[in-house]
Amino acid sequence: MNNIHLENVCLVGLGLLGGSLGLAVNRVFPTARRVGYSHRASTRQRALEAGAVDEVHEDVATAVAGAQLVVLASPIGTFETLFREIAPALPDGCLVTDVGSTKVWPARWARRALPARVTFLGSHPMAGSEQRGVDFARADLFDAANCILTPTARTPAAAVSFLRQFWEALGMRVSTMSPTQHDRVLARISHLPHVLAMALVNCSDPQEMLLCGKGFLDTTRIASGPPSVWRDILMSNAENTARAIDRLVKELTQVQAALRANRADKVTRQLGAAQDKRNQLVERKLKRKELPA
Amino acid sequence: MNNIHLENVCLVGLGLLGGSLGLAVNRVFPTARRVGYSHRASTRQRALEAGAVDEVHEDVATAVAGAQLVVLASPIGTFETLFREIAPALPDGCLVTDVGSTKVWPARWARRALPARVTFLGSHPMAGSEQRGVDFARADLFDAANCILTPTARTPAAAVSFLRQFWEALGMRVSTMSPTQHDRVLARISHLPHVLAMALVNCSDPQEMLLCGKGFLDTTRIASGPPSVWRDILMSNAENTARAIDRLVKELTQVQAALRANRADKVTRQLGAAQDKRNQLVERKLKRKELPA
Repeated sequence: MNNIHLENVCLVGLGLLGGSLGLAVNRVFPTARRVGYSHRASTRQRALEAGAVDEVHEDVATAVAGAQLVVLASPIGTFETLFREIAPALPDGCLVTDVGSTKVWPARWARRALPARVTFLGSHPMAGSEQRGVDFARADLFDAANCILTPTARTPAAAVSFLRQFWEALGMRVSTMSPTQHDRVLARISHLPHVLAMALVNCSDPQEMLLCGKGFLDTTRIASGPPSVWRDILMSNAENTARAIDRLVKELTQVQAALRANRADKVTRQLGAAQDKRNQLVERKLKRKELPA
Repeated sequence: MNNIHLENVCLVGLGLLGGSLGLAVNRVFPTARRVGYSHRASTRQRALEAGAVDEVHEDVATAVAGAQLVVLASPIGTFETLFREIAPALPDGCLVTDVGSTKVWPARWARRALPARVTFLGSHPMAGSEQRGVDFARADLFDAANCILTPTARTPAAAVSFLRQFWEALGMRVSTMSPTQHDRVLARISHLPHVLAMALVNCSDPQEMLLCGKGFLDTTRIASGPPSVWRDILMSNAENTARAIDRLVKELTQVQAALRANRADKVTRQLGAAQDKRNQLVERKLKRKELPA
């Protein structure tokens, strides 16, 4: 099903995403050698035991030394340092990507730190959960999910083609947009919902919350996600997220005005529009098999 | 397990809640006669076929004529008229309740319309789903969920005791508060999350939404709920909901300020607080068996 030849891949970071990527690569590219790096000895050990990688290194420069493809799968906050550490060791023609949730800053760091003899192209496989660590890694984590590639005007077409085929081989639906557009869109469909869930929990009273139903729990589920990961995401996309908050506050203020003016007609229209729009979204996702039927 | 004797109950409204109540009563009080009313012939027919009631009437005054307990389970917007229609037909000593999601307005309508020879006491069984209609009725809908009774200073203690035992017999965790307090609390833990989910969908672009992950879908799930039901809830609790929106907007504005000031420390604190608070909520709900383990 895939036309690319993957000889080996180096996974920098062996958590939920890195570990799952190792398992998925093994399923789709059984002959590819998977080299792993983690700064924690216990993580390296568990990744080996889980079969997520074939070998591990405690030094990241050693890990990437022979790599055809390098994937950064550690928190965004570690990227700038990692790029500088791997730069001298990367072989000529190596393709470097990452799986971070924001793309402007990683692209900037890569441009500054990596040599011209390698190519950087950001990836955002939109898969994961609120769970962390290689123990939750699954070979099917990427199945039927979206992946956004973020090439710039300088990215060689061959790199886009290779990475597209790589993620498609892993079962993903791949689209492309610029890093700038990616971060603007993700602020609205991913970072804003997270801020919202967090704000709703934080403005609620613990005793009152105990009386809540399933609606409150679902609406706030993502607020249980790891703070350090989300800090990196939000701080590296701060202005876009702040603007998305503006949009939402404007929308909330309109609902509030309709409520205070006793405008049942307006509130009904807003409720109906949201119901239609969400039901259409679910239908389209079902049709694209991005949701279980 | 239950100390009350329920001879019969009249269910006014035979949708998801009325239908489920009929099935649950049959399970717990097998000798109680269940009389149903719906303005739709097809609904009356389906409720009979589903075994949710023993007999149905197309005239609500006839339906309540011999009732020991009357439960209004139709949309809140129908209550005012229904109270007036059933008032002359209610037998002496009858207990009238409702399952509406707001309690101040129903209590006011009942006080104005119902005669002194009957007692009104509002109930809010916090069970349901985004599904509608008797076809989705389930005998276990009320199991392990919260129910809030909303007595006032004038409510006879016997009525509170009877209704408490009724809902507890159906498996619910019963608490009491005044109608005013109920509506203020529910605005924050139920009506605000609904407005939020609706606003998030309405401020999102349909094409961009297609790229969303599970987080966005969970956060907005309740926006798929029926607009007419939610219009009644929000309009009958407009000022409390508007104030809850103020609280949330203030919280969102604080996050926004921290993002724009590049205050990673503050954002981390907010993320950590939300994670802790929600995890504690889930733990306490698990302990109380309000969530599947």
